Amino acid sequence: LCGPILIIWRFLYKAWNLGVAEPKKAIHGVKVGLSLLIVSFFYYMRPLYDGVGGNAMWAVMTVVVVFESTVGATLCKCFNRTIGTFLAGSLALGVQWIADKSGETFQPIIIGISVFLLASAATFSRFIPSVKTRFDYGAMIFILTFSLVAVSGYRVERLFEMAHQRLSTIAIGTSLCIVITMVFCPIWAGSGLHDMIVCNLEKLADSLDGCVGEYFKDDKTKLGNEEDPSKRMQGYKCVLNSKATEEVMANLARWEPAHGRFNFRHPWKQYLKIGTSMRKCAYCIEALNSCINSEIQAPDYLKKHLRDVCMLLSNNSSEVLKELVIAMKTLTKSSKIDLLIGEMNLAVQKVQDSLNSLPNSFIGPAVSTLQAPNDANKETITKTAIPSLMEVFPLASLVYLLIEIAARTEG
Amino acid sequence: LCGPILIIWRFLYKAWNLGVAEPKKAIHGVKVGLSLLIVSFFYYMRPLYDGVGGNAMWAVMTVVVVFESTVGATLCKCFNRTIGTFLAGSLALGVQWIADKSGETFQPIIIGISVFLLASAATFSRFIPSVKTRFDYGAMIFILTFSLVAVSGYRVERLFEMAHQRLSTIAIGTSLCIVITMVFCPIWAGSGLHDMIVCNLEKLADSLDGCVGEYFKDDKTKLGNEEDPSKRMQGYKCVLNSKATEEVMANLARWEPAHGRFNFRHPWKQYLKIGTSMRKCAYCIEALNSCINSEIQAPDYLKKHLRDVCMLLSNNSSEVLKELVIAMKTLTKSSKIDLLIGEMNLAVQKVQDSLNSLPNSFIGPAVSTLQAPNDANKETITKTAIPSLMEVFPLASLVYLLIEIAARTEG
Repeated sequence: LCGPILIIWRFLYKAWNLGVAEPKKAIHGVKVGLSLLIVSFFYYMRPLYDGVGGNAMWAVMTVVVVFESTVGATLCKCFNRTIGTFLAGSLALGVQWIADKSGETFQPIIIGISVFLLASAATFSRFIPSVKTRFDYGAMIFILTFSLVAVSGYRVERLFEMAHQRLSTIAIGTSLCIVITMVFCPIWAGSGLHDMIVCNLEKLADSLDGCVGEYFKDDKTKLGNEEDPSKRMQGYKCVLNSKATEEVMANLARWEPAHGRFNFRHPWKQYLKIGTSMRKCAYCIEALNSCINSEIQAPDYLKKHLRDVCMLLSNNSSEVLKELVIAMKTLTKSSKIDLLIGEMNLAVQKVQDSLNSLPNSFIGPAVSTLQAPNDANKETITKTAIPSLMEVFPLASLVYLLIEIAARTEG
Repeated sequence: LCGPILIIWRFLYKAWNLGVAEPKKAIHGVKVGLSLLIVSFFYYMRPLYDGVGGNAMWAVMTVVVVFESTVGATLCKCFNRTIGTFLAGSLALGVQWIADKSGETFQPIIIGISVFLLASAATFSRFIPSVKTRFDYGAMIFILTFSLVAVSGYRVERLFEMAHQRLSTIAIGTSLCIVITMVFCPIWAGSGLHDMIVCNLEKLADSLDGCVGEYFKDDKTKLGNEEDPSKRMQGYKCVLNSKATEEVMANLARWEPAHGRFNFRHPWKQYLKIGTSMRKCAYCIEALNSCINSEIQAPDYLKKHLRDVCMLLSNNSSEVLKELVIAMKTLTKSSKIDLLIGEMNLAVQKVQDSLNSLPNSFIGPAVSTLQAPNDANKETITKTAIPSLMEVFPLASLVYLLIEIAARTEG
C-alpha cells in the first residue's frame, strides 16, 4: 500500500517544484481553466444557448484544443483551425451539391471517393516541410471538417445551418482564447526565444572562463567551493542540443504581433543564425573540455609559460560574450564592443607570439629531456587546447556580426 | 497571373519529389483515406447507424486525430484517447451525481468549479516531463471529455447513454486505426530509429575517412570527382543535431509490439546512449574539420611524416565503425570486431610512437629554421589534428561496448 502513495507523493512533489520554478506554467493552467469556465457559460445562459444550439460543444472543444502555452502557438492554431474549417466546409458543401444532382445511387460513391482522395492528399501534404512547419494543424482540421460535413450531409438536412453554426462557435472559441492568452500574463514565444539565446550566451561565457581556468588551474589555488565551477563549466552542454527548440520557437514567434520591445517584423530568423554560431562555439568548448579530462596532461612548465596569455585571451573573449549579452538584453548596438574585440584580437596575437617563442625557450629543456619522450606527447596536448581556444574567437566575432545585423534591421 | 501558378507548380513538384523519395509517406496518406472511407460506411449502412446513432461522428473524429504515421505513435494516441475518455467520463459522471444531489442553485457552481480546477490541474500536469513524454495527449483528452460531459450534463438527460456511446464509437475508431496501421505496410518507429542509427554510423565512418584523407591529401593526388568527397565529409553534420528526433522515436518505439527482428522489450534506451556516443564522435570530427579549413596549415614535411600512421589509424577506426554497422544490421555480436579493435589500438600506439619520435627528427630542422617562426605555429596545427583524431577512438570503442550490451539484452 505504501508504494503507490510514495509514487503519488513524489509526483506531487515534483509538480510543486516545477510550479515554483516556473510559475508561468501554473499560470497557463489557470488561464485554460478560466477560458473553459467562461465557455461553459454558453450552456448555462438560456439566450446564448438558444443562439448556437447544441453546437456550443464545438466552442468547448476549440478552447481545449487550441489553447497553447505561448501566444504564438495559440494564434497559429486559431488561424489554422478557422481557415481549415472554412475551406473544408465550403468544399464539402460543393461536393455535396454535386452529389445531390447526380442521383441517389451515385451520391455515396461520389462522396466516398472525394473523402478518400482529399484525406489522402491532405495527409500527405502534412509531410511537406513548408506545410509541416506552419499549417500542420490546419491540414488535420481540413480533413476532419471535410469528412464530417461531407459524410453527415447524407443524414442531416439542415447542412448549411450546421456549417454556419460550427463556424460561429469556432469563432467564439478562438476569439476567447486569443483575448485570454494575450491579456492575462501573456507568454510570448518571441520573448522566450530571446531570453533563451541571452541565457545560452551567458552560459557559453561562463563555460569558456571555467574550462580555461580549470585547465590552467594550480593545485595550490584550489578554491573552497568545488562543485560550483564544474557546474558552470557544464553550461555549454545545453547549447549543444538547442537547435530543435530554437526552430520551433522562432516559427511560433513569427505569428506574434508586436509586444514589449519587439516589433511585428522582428528578425527572428537572425536568432537561428546566432544559435548556429553559438553551437559552433559550444563544439569548440566541448573539444577544450575533452583536453581537460584527457589522461595525458601537459607538463607544468609549459602550462605556466602559456597560462597568462591564455587566461588573458579567455577573459577577453568571455568579456566580449558578456558585452554581447548586455547588447542583446538592451537591444542596442554596444559602443564598447569594438574596443573589446580589438583587445581580444590583441590577445590572440599575444598567444600566437608566445607559441612562436616556445621553440626558443623550450628546445633547450626538450633536448635535455629526450630520455623522457612522454613530455613531447604532453606538450602536444597543451598545444591542442590552445588552437581550439583560438578557433572560438572568429566565431565569437561572427556572433557579433550577426547581432549587429539584427540591431540594424530593427532600425 | 503567372506567379501563383508557378508557386503552385513548384509546390506540386516538391510534393511529387517527396513522394518518390519516400513512398512510405504517400502510403500513409492512402491508409488514412482508406480508414476514413471505412468509417464513413457507418453513416451509410442503416443497421450500424441505428446502433451508435449520431455519435458516429466521434468515430470519424477519432480516426482523423489518432492516425499517425508510425505504429508507435498511433498506439500511443489510441491508448491515451481511450484511457483519457474513460477516466474523465467516469469522473464527470461522479461530479454530475454530486451536483444533482445538492440542488438546482448549487449545481452550476459545483460543476463550474470542478471544471476550472480539473482543467487547470490537468493542463499544468502536461508540463511535467514524465507526463509530457507519454501522456500529453491523454491529458488533453481528459480535459476535453470532462468539460464536455460535465457541462452538457446540465442539458442532456440521457447522460449515461451518451457516455456509453462515445466510448463505443471511440473503440470502433481506435480499433480500426490499429488494424489498418499494423496490417497495411506498417511503418514502425522502432525500425525507423534502428535504420537512422545505422545510417548515421555509416555517415560517421565516411566522414572520418573523408576528413582525414582530405587533411593529408597531396595536391598531386587530386581526383577527378571533386564534389563527392566533400559531400561525404559533411555527413557527420546530421549526427550533430539528431538528439530530439532520436528521443521522440525511442519514446514511440516503446509502445510498439514485437515486429520483424525486434522483440517486445527491445532495449530502445540503448539506442539513445549509442546516439549520445555518436554525437561525441561527431563533435570530434567537427574539430578535425575546422583544422582542415583553418588558414594556418602544417608544413608539408610534417604532414608527410605523420600521414601514413594517421591514415592507417583512420582506416582502422572507420573499419571498426563499418563492422559496427554490419553488427547493427544483423543484430548479432560480430566476431571480427575484437580483432579490428585490437588493430585500431595498435594503430593508436603507432601514432603515439611517431609523435614521440618527432622531437628527435625535427629538432634539427626546427633549430635551423628559427628564422621562420611561423613553422612552429603550423606544427601546432597538425598536432591539434592528431589528438582530436585520437579522441575519436575511445568513443568508437564505447559505441562498441554499448552495442554489445544491446546484443546481450536480446539474448
